[in-house]
Amino acid sequence: MAVYTHVGAEEVSVFLAKYDVGKLLSFKGIAEGIENSNYLVETDQGHYFLTLYENRVDPGDLPFFHDLLEHLKAAGCRVPAFISDSNGEWLQQLCGRPACLIEFLSGVSVSKPNANQAMAVGRSLGDLHRAVADFSKIRPNSLGISAWRALAEKCGANDLNGIDVGLFDRISAELDILDKEWPVHLPQSVIHADLFPDNVLMLGDEVSGLIDFYFACTEIRAYDIAVTHAAWSFSADGKVYLPQIGTALIDGYSASHGIDDSTLDALPWLLRGACLRFLLTRCYDWINTPAGALVTKKDPLAFLRRLDFYANPANAKAITGRKA
Amino acid sequence: MAVYTHVGAEEVSVFLAKYDVGKLLSFKGIAEGIENSNYLVETDQGHYFLTLYENRVDPGDLPFFHDLLEHLKAAGCRVPAFISDSNGEWLQQLCGRPACLIEFLSGVSVSKPNANQAMAVGRSLGDLHRAVADFSKIRPNSLGISAWRALAEKCGANDLNGIDVGLFDRISAELDILDKEWPVHLPQSVIHADLFPDNVLMLGDEVSGLIDFYFACTEIRAYDIAVTHAAWSFSADGKVYLPQIGTALIDGYSASHGIDDSTLDALPWLLRGACLRFLLTRCYDWINTPAGALVTKKDPLAFLRRLDFYANPANAKAITGRKA
Repeated sequence: MAVYTHVGAEEVSVFLAKYDVGKLLSFKGIAEGIENSNYLVETDQGHYFLTLYENRVDPGDLPFFHDLLEHLKAAGCRVPAFISDSNGEWLQQLCGRPACLIEFLSGVSVSKPNANQAMAVGRSLGDLHRAVADFSKIRPNSLGISAWRALAEKCGANDLNGIDVGLFDRISAELDILDKEWPVHLPQSVIHADLFPDNVLMLGDEVSGLIDFYFACTEIRAYDIAVTHAAWSFSADGKVYLPQIGTALIDGYSASHGIDDSTLDALPWLLRGACLRFLLTRCYDWINTPAGALVTKKDPLAFLRRLDFYANPANAKAITGRKA
Repeated sequence: MAVYTHVGAEEVSVFLAKYDVGKLLSFKGIAEGIENSNYLVETDQGHYFLTLYENRVDPGDLPFFHDLLEHLKAAGCRVPAFISDSNGEWLQQLCGRPACLIEFLSGVSVSKPNANQAMAVGRSLGDLHRAVADFSKIRPNSLGISAWRALAEKCGANDLNGIDVGLFDRISAELDILDKEWPVHLPQSVIHADLFPDNVLMLGDEVSGLIDFYFACTEIRAYDIAVTHAAWSFSADGKVYLPQIGTALIDGYSASHGIDDSTLDALPWLLRGACLRFLLTRCYDWINTPAGALVTKKDPLAFLRRLDFYANPANAKAITGRKA
């Protein structure tokens, strides 16, 4: 969480003048989104996000994200639209950074979801997957299964074992199994790939927005279910599985999109893979974040605990309703 | 800039339910205010700030700040009001911290003020000083002249000289002069004490809000003019004095409050003192901020350069229109 690029009021005024959004009344740097600098902008016509893309987002990917959100919006999904200026341009430069004006959506990220909320999130994910069925653009997943072994090596056995005794071997063994069992036969599509509670806006039990599509990519579609399940269905430390949340998520998804048996059979592998992905990136961040940095380091082991849970055949069976 | 205490949506909803401010629609952590955790809260009735007070604000001081803002507001000053809940309480506890709901004011902080804006800021400061003439509460200035030598010692000669060659001796010599010349005979009142551009909200050339009163204290009244002059009338690095800004500030103040000759005569000492105060606190922060921390370390020498400027008798004379 941080604002990396500081923009002055004068620069924001000049920037907004390109758009038909009214006059600047206030703007505040927002302490969220580790990938970008985000400002909440108030004009006499409404509220908007001003996003400056920092180094972690490849500017070459922005047209993909723009087209995806436009496609989803047209299909009725609640996602924030990129706003075009008076010349039809949605991508600008500000303070030497690619910068976009983005629709503001009301809603809050829940930290302790109830089953109705989880059901609504599952349904929204299903709606999203139905909406992208005819979206033809492709973006490779740079954090997919083929990248995980290299990421583990980059963390290094010593540093991984410093986080938890034997962690490097545990990860290697898991990678061996997943490489063998990964359900490459399942259908691919564009997925959100990061649908944590932070990235879902809710008003009461309804989803008012899906946000932060900057990990969206082409992947096994059901991997998105796995990420969402792992992200929502546990206490934050990964120690307690919340069956009513997990069940509601899958029921909601199923009600919108349907889940066939071959997907359910493969889901345990996808769930383990999703845990490994976040375990690895959190380990990497843990190892590479300076000691005094004011960013919240997220506990990697919260995802090792989830992995342990999903790797238990009885749990996998309970989640999918299928034999392990 | 940071959010230190993370508050969940559920907790914010429960907090807001005490107030007559409508239903929560969104809330975002704001990346400003190094003293506190600030959230911008949207309800179906409007926008508000939710502030959680961290360790740097003494909860015992909050009634002073509350009463001061209420007094200023009643006198017509544009300052944010503390909002009371349905039981008349303006101070709550949230996540183990003192927490208040505060009025949201539109406006932006300018980074390159023009003379009209500087005139308006000077006038607002004069208005504030007229408004506090009958405010009787007292809060000692913990960062006043009597604290500066101890602060220099706390920084340490080695670390100060590491920032700039000979800095410790330079500061000591300046303290010797200021201790002798400090205009203790001038009238005291409550002052803002930190009226940097960040703490003034503007809409066009008008001041829409004075904010961040957490350094407000009882002090020589004209010291507030000195802080504001030093904060506004230079390029950020302190290398270039902007005479049209400095002149407009004093003209604006004078038009509202008046400045008598004894104040003008003493102003150069107050200007030098104001520079020393920010030089010292910035040095202290510079020395004590961890290397990897994601806070912007502010260049202490930007205030040494201002000090050098004000210490030149010709400059002092040009600013005050009086003999040095």
